[in-house]
Amino acid sequence: MNTQLKQRVAELAKQLTLHNALVGTAESCTGGGVAHAFTGVAGSSQWFNGGAVTYSNRLKQKLLGVSAQTLALHGAVSQPVAEEMVCGALTLLEVDYAISITGVAGPGGGSEQKPVGTVWFAWAGPNSLCSEQQKFAGNRDSIREQATEYAILGLINILKSTG
Amino acid sequence: MNTQLKQRVAELAKQLTLHNALVGTAESCTGGGVAHAFTGVAGSSQWFNGGAVTYSNRLKQKLLGVSAQTLALHGAVSQPVAEEMVCGALTLLEVDYAISITGVAGPGGGSEQKPVGTVWFAWAGPNSLCSEQQKFAGNRDSIREQATEYAILGLINILKSTG
Repeated sequence: MNTQLKQRVAELAKQLTLHNALVGTAESCTGGGVAHAFTGVAGSSQWFNGGAVTYSNRLKQKLLGVSAQTLALHGAVSQPVAEEMVCGALTLLEVDYAISITGVAGPGGGSEQKPVGTVWFAWAGPNSLCSEQQKFAGNRDSIREQATEYAILGLINILKSTG
Repeated sequence: MNTQLKQRVAELAKQLTLHNALVGTAESCTGGGVAHAFTGVAGSSQWFNGGAVTYSNRLKQKLLGVSAQTLALHGAVSQPVAEEMVCGALTLLEVDYAISITGVAGPGGGSEQKPVGTVWFAWAGPNSLCSEQQKFAGNRDSIREQATEYAILGLINILKSTG
């Protein structure tokens, strides 16, 4: 695991500890990369409960409660799906904060509307729900790495802004 | 992701495709590392459904159906827990094959009986259940990497031996 990512996770760990909060992850295109980064830091069991890697649409529905209608209407890489994933993760993983990530890591799977590199993120907390789209450049590895880091940074910022 | 690991995953992908089979993961100490390695390969949605990162004992019970009694009697890093995790993963993730990993990645958490580096693996298929203990040397990153690769190799061997 690269040093910068470890530093980010250490920063997040500090914030979560300050908030006495647990976090969980719901990942599609990063495929467990955020959970893997979290657990790369010793002592992460103090603030990380676990994660769901919902690579198939079926598991997005079954584990996280994403609705079939939302998937059919908006596609897996969309704001509504990211939001439903993160809300489902709060319940499934029994955590205070959750992160969800769904995107097109490539090299296939891109379209005009959702080119390779399109990633939707959502972050949920006890009183908040934020979502955001990013378009990353690079190959599959690079897009997944950037998405992992962005997801972690987003949660750090939310925790910092909620005192 | 390192090249050797990618080659292993490509080899596994070939075997799973030959068997027309889906795989899922149930990870504790590797924290999503196996799922992350799987999804590092383009096209993995053809054979990887998803995974559960059950870092807390509570989630091992809730998501994978590991019994409280097994956890209390044997501890999370044990053969019975690895076996219950992998059987639970087959059902939860609706897959033909599953891998489970539970171990002591360190630097803390070791004991005389279960020193840092002790990892239990289980692999389940339509008609098989195998489990194995390994003791890896090295730091946290290295132990997690070795465990990730070992878990993948184990499944490749099972698939090869089942024609």
